Amino acid sequence: MSATDDGSWSPILAAARSVFLEQGFHGASVREIAKRAGLTVPALYYHHESKEGLLMAILLRAVTNLSELTERIDATPGTPAERLGRLTHAIVMSIASDAPTFAIDSSEARYLGPQNHERYAELRGRVEDVMRGVVTDGLNDGSFDVDDVSTTSRAIFGMLMAIPRWYNVEGPESPETIAERYAHLTVNMVRNTAN
Amino acid sequence: MSATDDGSWSPILAAARSVFLEQGFHGASVREIAKRAGLTVPALYYHHESKEGLLMAILLRAVTNLSELTERIDATPGTPAERLGRLTHAIVMSIASDAPTFAIDSSEARYLGPQNHERYAELRGRVEDVMRGVVTDGLNDGSFDVDDVSTTSRAIFGMLMAIPRWYNVEGPESPETIAERYAHLTVNMVRNTAN
Repeated sequence: MSATDDGSWSPILAAARSVFLEQGFHGASVREIAKRAGLTVPALYYHHESKEGLLMAILLRAVTNLSELTERIDATPGTPAERLGRLTHAIVMSIASDAPTFAIDSSEARYLGPQNHERYAELRGRVEDVMRGVVTDGLNDGSFDVDDVSTTSRAIFGMLMAIPRWYNVEGPESPETIAERYAHLTVNMVRNTAN
Repeated sequence: MSATDDGSWSPILAAARSVFLEQGFHGASVREIAKRAGLTVPALYYHHESKEGLLMAILLRAVTNLSELTERIDATPGTPAERLGRLTHAIVMSIASDAPTFAIDSSEARYLGPQNHERYAELRGRVEDVMRGVVTDGLNDGSFDVDDVSTTSRAIFGMLMAIPRWYNVEGPESPETIAERYAHLTVNMVRNTAN
């Protein structure tokens, strides 16, 4: 990946991200991405082997960050409700801090070729595993009550991944406010009210 | 719209839908759509004025059905929890019965031009208004307890609209089972547990 370690985007990936957002993966031209990055097409190909390579670099960065974040959060002890609340809060903060990338994740990841898709799905699967693990723990200790672990985890994940579609960085609500609201909604969704 | 009244798709719209799903709106060629529909390009243009017109016809049909459905469901009396459960159940059934169209709705609606987007957003807004109305009624009679009506409605809507990304028509779970699970999750999410 040409992204630098401090979390900023290389000019090529920033250009690719904006063109993918505007035109979709199939509509995006490498010529336009190179132009926005201030490079020639051959210079762009020196850094990234293909248009799919650019999409993969963008998605890999987002999903790697998310996977590391969720595994770190999950290592902090607490009740299942506390862990689920923290996990939701952290994922919302991560999505809100990089909404354009997660918007691409939602709509363009399906265009990755089989090999890239497998690697991407493996990392994304880790995030879903953490979520399923917390829901399972809550069912086991009786603090949660849901019909089905997988449906519940997918529902939570879908709810979070839809945020980039309406979230506005310039909007009146801070990422913290939105993260807190989603944490409440998620914990209420699974809580065993017979307790 | 060239869609017939019995809910089936015209060959042109069916072809457009499959090409949009595989290639995205910008990647889709009218030539390929015409080919799959068994028509010449001019014959296709006789029925639909542009590629955007095809996308609009597909999305309009889905969002019109959804909007009529939610308004019909909402007219049935009941407690806010009963109404929200029914609404969720009906929306999931509708999405599961036409997952490919709702997948296009999620990822390609942003490519509509301003005029079409306004009309689409107006219809989609009606569905969201019904959802917000039920959540507001539950807050007013004390049966629901949430931080914010708009965030809650968007969260529910996002959760439902994410279903096409993983839903498999051939999968072991019936649409009814999934609809029931989502209805439980949604009602739990907003319920006032102090009651």
